[in-house]
Amino acid sequence: MKVTVLGCGRWGSFLAWYANKIGHDVILWGREESKNYQRLVHSRTNEYLQLPQNIHLTDRIAEAIEFAEIIFIAISAQELRGFAKLLNTMGITNKIFVLCMKGLEMESGERLSQVFMEEIKSAVHLAIWVGPGHVQDFVKDIPNCMVIDSDHMNITQLLVDSFGSEIIRFYYGQDLLGNEIGAAAKNVIGIAAGMLDGLGYTSLKGALMARGTKEIARLVKAMGGNELTIYGLGHLGDYEATVFSNHSHNRRFGEAFVKKEPFEKLAEGVATVKALLQLSTIYNVELPICQAVHSVLSEGNDPKEQLIRLFMRPVKFEGI
Amino acid sequence: MKVTVLGCGRWGSFLAWYANKIGHDVILWGREESKNYQRLVHSRTNEYLQLPQNIHLTDRIAEAIEFAEIIFIAISAQELRGFAKLLNTMGITNKIFVLCMKGLEMESGERLSQVFMEEIKSAVHLAIWVGPGHVQDFVKDIPNCMVIDSDHMNITQLLVDSFGSEIIRFYYGQDLLGNEIGAAAKNVIGIAAGMLDGLGYTSLKGALMARGTKEIARLVKAMGGNELTIYGLGHLGDYEATVFSNHSHNRRFGEAFVKKEPFEKLAEGVATVKALLQLSTIYNVELPICQAVHSVLSEGNDPKEQLIRLFMRPVKFEGI
Repeated sequence: MKVTVLGCGRWGSFLAWYANKIGHDVILWGREESKNYQRLVHSRTNEYLQLPQNIHLTDRIAEAIEFAEIIFIAISAQELRGFAKLLNTMGITNKIFVLCMKGLEMESGERLSQVFMEEIKSAVHLAIWVGPGHVQDFVKDIPNCMVIDSDHMNITQLLVDSFGSEIIRFYYGQDLLGNEIGAAAKNVIGIAAGMLDGLGYTSLKGALMARGTKEIARLVKAMGGNELTIYGLGHLGDYEATVFSNHSHNRRFGEAFVKKEPFEKLAEGVATVKALLQLSTIYNVELPICQAVHSVLSEGNDPKEQLIRLFMRPVKFEGI
Repeated sequence: MKVTVLGCGRWGSFLAWYANKIGHDVILWGREESKNYQRLVHSRTNEYLQLPQNIHLTDRIAEAIEFAEIIFIAISAQELRGFAKLLNTMGITNKIFVLCMKGLEMESGERLSQVFMEEIKSAVHLAIWVGPGHVQDFVKDIPNCMVIDSDHMNITQLLVDSFGSEIIRFYYGQDLLGNEIGAAAKNVIGIAAGMLDGLGYTSLKGALMARGTKEIARLVKAMGGNELTIYGLGHLGDYEATVFSNHSHNRRFGEAFVKKEPFEKLAEGVATVKALLQLSTIYNVELPICQAVHSVLSEGNDPKEQLIRLFMRPVKFEGI
């Protein structure tokens, strides 16, 4: 099967590597000026993997779109709207887009599938690919379970059948809204986890998991999704990778932030928490963990005070 | 308030230390021949803490029982029935017993509150104290959230009001059955986590968390409890301590087992998994993770094969 991957960062390059490995015919697209793209063109490697010669690299978006019916997108979540506007100018039909990203639009709080479909004016199919798994593990054949979700079960089924392997076992998502919110929100829980680690309160990550899932489940329910989705692979199932792993950018970001150490770049959860607070207002759902993370990141409040207040405040019932 | 603690291992000695610290008048009982007891008598210390002089140590059970209305029990779960039989010979009335233990009776699958009440023939009140928290952290003033549950809200309230502090924030449990099953079952998930760590499959601990909670939630529901209890502090909230922490005896046991390294003593989860399989049969609920752990521990099956089969088997829906 022909497959196009748009975006050649860590996850995009992995998707191309993986689709090729399990027998698909793959084009990987990157922006010409992107450092990631230039590096792959010159060396066919990055810090995670080596791309076989039969993966075609291109910076010509028209060629990449033309090539395949199934198109994976793995770019920065906040750039999706602009990118979708660009794709829309190209007269796209009969494609299945798979969003392989975890985030929400910062200013609007919109889910990425909403953002994408608002901009693509033609009829296309849309799916998401979320859940746990480190590139670093997959390239060493260490398996994991992930989730494909979409608006149409036959699309979900096609993707699961085409991309499952002994390395990635896919489950059929049954709640697109819940899985999108959950996949995005886990990055905020990851930042909170990093803050706890940085403050020497690692043992509160247990309470963080119990309260974090509940908080996001409440939001999903208020939005019309299934609250139990949050306890599945897409959110709770991603906590090892996000709340505990050293590979987690969001966790490391939260830790560096409270230790006042330098960090490479903002974590995706920083934008996501703003989006979640929009949703908190729109749907009238309290999100105390998100609120605390935001108050530390954006309002200069003391992390220890905020987080201790959060966990030790006089709430008597768990609200389950 | 007068408080008696029965059992002077890690958790019992901590309970005495903690109750004393927050202002209660404490007796700590241990068996005369117990090494833990002898060590405390001679040095008033163990590897975790130092007992202040105003905690009275005794090996006379009648004195300990007589002393206080509130009696904490922290002994080995499998010894509870015999211990309760002994207590029953002493003509006990007007006491509140608080079981501070996580386990199930191995042969019967019974919850510890059931075991205890079957043997104590007089009318007493019974509560449980479960949830996350390492002694190693508490003695350094690192706080955590825990759960008190009982059959009577006024007993729960009395205990929460008397024993909450800036170090331990208690939530009111609302499902004694769910919290007992959850607190016990987390040790089995801890063994499975250790096995994954030992096999180099740490990243599957995300899927383990999502599937483990769901499996135990199904059991709790079938037994008449509230499935959502499992996602609260008593089970999921204890995963940091059990699934990730180096302090976790069950996790370390699972890791040592698959690496064929020596281990100090059997972890409590080894008995608990047998009890859970009894419940699986009685309530006709599949418990694939418990089954896999048992087949590795007791039937000599290959851990890698069992665990990989578990996570990578062709289940399509998460069943949420």
